[in-house]
Amino acid sequence: MSQENSNSALVGIIMGSKSDLPVMQDAADVLKEFGINYEITVVSAHRTPERMFNYAKDAQGRGLKVIIAGAGGAAHLPGMVASITTLPVIGVPVKSSNSIDGWDSILSILQMPNGIPVATVALNAAKNAGLLATQILATADDTLTVKMQAYKDDLRKKVEESADSL
Amino acid sequence: MSQENSNSALVGIIMGSKSDLPVMQDAADVLKEFGINYEITVVSAHRTPERMFNYAKDAQGRGLKVIIAGAGGAAHLPGMVASITTLPVIGVPVKSSNSIDGWDSILSILQMPNGIPVATVALNAAKNAGLLATQILATADDTLTVKMQAYKDDLRKKVEESADSL
Amino acid sequence: MSQENSNSALVGIIMGSKSDLPVMQDAADVLKEFGINYEITVVSAHRTPERMFNYAKDAQGRGLKVIIAGAGGAAHLPGMVASITTLPVIGVPVKSSNSIDGWDSILSILQMPNGIPVATVALNAAKNAGLLATQILATADDTLTVKMQAYKDDLRKKVEESADSL
Amino acid sequence: MSQENSNSALVGIIMGSKSDLPVMQDAADVLKEFGINYEITVVSAHRTPERMFNYAKDAQGRGLKVIIAGAGGAAHLPGMVASITTLPVIGVPVKSSNSIDGWDSILSILQMPNGIPVATVALNAAKNAGLLATQILATADDTLTVKMQAYKDDLRKKVEESADSL
Amino acid sequence: MSQENSNSALVGIIMGSKSDLPVMQDAADVLKEFGINYEITVVSAHRTPERMFNYAKDAQGRGLKVIIAGAGGAAHLPGMVASITTLPVIGVPVKSSNSIDGWDSILSILQMPNGIPVATVALNAAKNAGLLATQILATADDTLTVKMQAYKDDLRKKVEESADSL
Amino acid sequence: MSQENSNSALVGIIMGSKSDLPVMQDAADVLKEFGINYEITVVSAHRTPERMFNYAKDAQGRGLKVIIAGAGGAAHLPGMVASITTLPVIGVPVKSSNSIDGWDSILSILQMPNGIPVATVALNAAKNAGLLATQILATADDTLTVKMQAYKDDLRKKVEESADSL
Amino acid sequence: MSQENSNSALVGIIMGSKSDLPVMQDAADVLKEFGINYEITVVSAHRTPERMFNYAKDAQGRGLKVIIAGAGGAAHLPGMVASITTLPVIGVPVKSSNSIDGWDSILSILQMPNGIPVATVALNAAKNAGLLATQILATADDTLTVKMQAYKDDLRKKVEESADSL
Amino acid sequence: MSQENSNSALVGIIMGSKSDLPVMQDAADVLKEFGINYEITVVSAHRTPERMFNYAKDAQGRGLKVIIAGAGGAAHLPGMVASITTLPVIGVPVKSSNSIDGWDSILSILQMPNGIPVATVALNAAKNAGLLATQILATADDTLTVKMQAYKDDLRKKVEESADSL
Repeated sequence: MSQENSNSALVGIIMGSKSDLPVMQDAADVLKEFGINYEITVVSAHRTPERMFNYAKDAQGRGLKVIIAGAGGAAHLPGMVASITTLPVIGVPVKSSNSIDGWDSILSILQMPNGIPVATVALNAAKNAGLLATQILATADDTLTVKMQAYKDDLRKKVEESADSL
Repeated sequence: MSQENSNSALVGIIMGSKSDLPVMQDAADVLKEFGINYEITVVSAHRTPERMFNYAKDAQGRGLKVIIAGAGGAAHLPGMVASITTLPVIGVPVKSSNSIDGWDSILSILQMPNGIPVATVALNAAKNAGLLATQILATADDTLTVKMQAYKDDLRKKVEESADSL
Repeated sequence: MSQENSNSALVGIIMGSKSDLPVMQDAADVLKEFGINYEITVVSAHRTPERMFNYAKDAQGRGLKVIIAGAGGAAHLPGMVASITTLPVIGVPVKSSNSIDGWDSILSILQMPNGIPVATVALNAAKNAGLLATQILATADDTLTVKMQAYKDDLRKKVEESADSL
Repeated sequence: MSQENSNSALVGIIMGSKSDLPVMQDAADVLKEFGINYEITVVSAHRTPERMFNYAKDAQGRGLKVIIAGAGGAAHLPGMVASITTLPVIGVPVKSSNSIDGWDSILSILQMPNGIPVATVALNAAKNAGLLATQILATADDTLTVKMQAYKDDLRKKVEESADSL
Repeated sequence: MSQENSNSALVGIIMGSKSDLPVMQDAADVLKEFGINYEITVVSAHRTPERMFNYAKDAQGRGLKVIIAGAGGAAHLPGMVASITTLPVIGVPVKSSNSIDGWDSILSILQMPNGIPVATVALNAAKNAGLLATQILATADDTLTVKMQAYKDDLRKKVEESADSL
Repeated sequence: MSQENSNSALVGIIMGSKSDLPVMQDAADVLKEFGINYEITVVSAHRTPERMFNYAKDAQGRGLKVIIAGAGGAAHLPGMVASITTLPVIGVPVKSSNSIDGWDSILSILQMPNGIPVATVALNAAKNAGLLATQILATADDTLTVKMQAYKDDLRKKVEESADSL
Repeated sequence: MSQENSNSALVGIIMGSKSDLPVMQDAADVLKEFGINYEITVVSAHRTPERMFNYAKDAQGRGLKVIIAGAGGAAHLPGMVASITTLPVIGVPVKSSNSIDGWDSILSILQMPNGIPVATVALNAAKNAGLLATQILATADDTLTVKMQAYKDDLRKKVEESADSL
Repeated sequence: MSQENSNSALVGIIMGSKSDLPVMQDAADVLKEFGINYEITVVSAHRTPERMFNYAKDAQGRGLKVIIAGAGGAAHLPGMVASITTLPVIGVPVKSSNSIDGWDSILSILQMPNGIPVATVALNAAKNAGLLATQILATADDTLTVKMQAYKDDLRKKVEESADSL
């Protein structure tokens, strides 16, 4: 398993295929920006179901607090991981090459039955998945809240600058 | 596990929730009509992931030849079972109460990635799932082929009669 | 503001209209089941924009850890609250009477731009919103994790019982 | 705030992101063509909620008669501005890079609840937003009505010429 | 033509079929509430094309300032009226019995080509059409602006009361 | 009006914009292939409503037997022409640049109310519009029927040849 | 085959299932109103493919001029009949019980490939199919044209009356 | 007919047009990989209906066990073949140039009426069609089951390697 800082990773980023990496890297970049330890790897619900099971089963024991799972098409990874772990799972619908404009990715991640939620973000929005993981960790970490406020202030300033430049 | 004729069941019918039974019963009725041994039970990908794993893993060893899996909403059961077994899996998208007019059920069953097919039938078409299972078994059982031809002849006659009655 | 246990509420449940209550009550019921203090009220992005602003602005200071926001049609409440607070916001798309089969509710909550995530759950899935809030709080509260595991075990047992009854 | 003729601007053009400018410029061009004073700037509902509030709150006092607001994805800007001001708000759904073929932009602008209308134009149709603003101002300005009739005559002539050239 | 106060009607409400009246009546009720003179009648683009032409051509000369047009299915009335008059035309997509969940009504009203805008409101949202007409007239009538502010205040109060009652 | 063989044109091909010509030319080519006199021009329902009225009103008197009308987006041309003439009108939904993947073009042409049919063909299928016009004329012209049979034979042969080449 | 006036039937009405009769009867009623001989029967592409082949192959020889074919779901009847006969085929998408809100019926009838047109009318619009058949026959029968004009005049009068009654 | 190993072909691959070959070749490649004899040719439901009839009628007699049929747009080939043969038919919805993002292809293949199933795979997923055919044959051929298990093991290993390389 490819791991960055995995000794003490708080967030696990997984994706159904290495081809999802260009999208999912945004989640890792946000976590790095906020100084949050994470790990990132490929786990396919359909091609490596046991690996997926083991990943989900061990996640909490290994110290993970949040899992970010991205997949496209009939995207079962986020929902299946959520069925196994008690950790909050953030689902990123990926507009992969075999997806019908992303509709299949969205619906097969979002429309989970009662009992097993997946926190779904927008199509390809791995960046927002990273931010949401940060907000979740911030509920018990005031430093992260301060950083998140600064992040939002920065967003605001950039809009103001772009308005000024118009 | 509720079983009819399960000693020598050739087809396993599973569904994500007992509420799918009114739809899925049609598959059982067709198989009974063709004299094919089957078993039928509830297996939820999201609420009983290990049961689902075990069901899929043992299916071939127990003598099953085909699995029919029905589910609605973010319907992961057919695809996940297909990821674990080498048996052909027929997926029935169910228009369950939490489904968006069936679109989520269809897309999350149909749009499987390369490598892991699910033979998807029409929305709520458990009857066609039963017929497809019969056709699959008929590829190695000429009696079933004869019965299937008779079934088709009967469909034809019923249309002709309804035309006559017009 | 109507409040249950609001002295120490950890989760704020808001909805765009009182007509959303039959859906949103499920979130409250789940939180009560897990023993989590919550408050519940009506906040309309479009009819009470200042009330919405103030609610979002004060949420963290008042001790809230998570906000659950439900709305239908052009559903701006979850996203606007998320734009103002640093707390994680869970969005519940409500299939309200003026919604086009829920598609507008889903897309206007889910498709948030980069920088401002909303953790979206399935259409009308307020129960899952309550469970997701619980999972978020459980990341810093082991008792909740234990309860969540028990909840999942219970889901499993109910499926097994319904299978036995088939 | 970038302003053209803002001393006496009658129409305020705002957009959620500077990346919407290539689309929204068409609205400005039409207003210029009709000799209507306008201002144009960036106001993000999600990244600058307070700026958005202030813009909407002050709009009428500053002499604006109509607001044109363009945004994409979960597009909350037009509806939120409409919730704060009494001025007519014209919404332009932008097919931005994060939009699902424009469906999210359209539905989250169009499907406003009773009480808070947004005058929605076609996807990316900022030109029509400019024309609609002109028609609104023309209800109290006969010179604009005359110009609008001339504009329509010109459209007609261009079609006739293109027919002749066939 | 059925007319209320038509001597000095400022707003013309038309609909493609008398069966649209239960929806379109909301527009009339709002205008009555704001004390705005209006007329209301049936004009079908497809069954009475000349009547439609004449209505649109004479509208401005008869003193109308705004036209509200409602239709369902392949809804051509709003767009065709807009092609003939220079007045602002508000389109109400009606979810009529022959409509496909309203999608045809919405798209055939909203997606007007450049040059001919229709101010489209939400599906069946005739009330919002009436409010938008009022906002348009208010751009040249301060009493209407005052009333519109009061209307918005009232919306706010009703939400606050429903929150209190929770 | 640009006319080919218009002295005795049996089919009138019209389109909402000259930009539709690359699509609509296919209809003309088919008619030429079958030796059917036709005329082709630009008639915009929205930019030249009177021209459209006159075209539709005079069509039968001028000897036309069938009208082929192509348009995109909120495509009102086929339906409006059909509302004025008693001739059969064939509608070609054009996937124009302002169309949402063609859905608006299709629905606003296809979903005509009872009383006013438009014979709609597939998206961009102007060739099929030409063939359908030929079939209509062939109902009273046996030579055309013979040619149409030959055309179908040719289609068959081309498939057989492509099968042979595989 | 059930036949009304079939000795000299000019229009053949067929449907995939007797359950489509309540919809398809409208086509027959229109033809009767215009005094056009027709026949009506059940022909299923899927359950009676040979019957369908023979029907389509013999249609022209038996004197039919137009075929109206209605079907729902994966609706292959209109397109397959069109592939076999040279007669114009009018397709009626039926919103049958197994259809997904009619979308499957529409797309599988409308989207025919180049070479094989089907004149598609609106969902369930068998009445318009009857009118279109009448218009087609009227291209060679002036009495029908006169009747069609009277029919349109009647539509107009009914709207005018309903306007008067408002 | 172009044939590879057709003397003893077990699987027949057909497609509506030679332009579908780049998609459908994947099915052939999979079968070759598994050592299964197949034949591949072009059969158009709409342009060669008799050829299609004959193909379907003779398929079983010629020794075929499974038919894979690919088509796009109003895709009638898989369903029509299934209506004639008793063999299992696998349908591949092709996103052809005249298709609306594949929706028409999917719905006109998937939504078959009760009595006539088509085993539908994902859009353009001819590879999965080949695998499904293999699984069907494997129900009576243990060597194929062993190979299929090896194929799945290989999928797993590739994911593990790509995970290692991250």
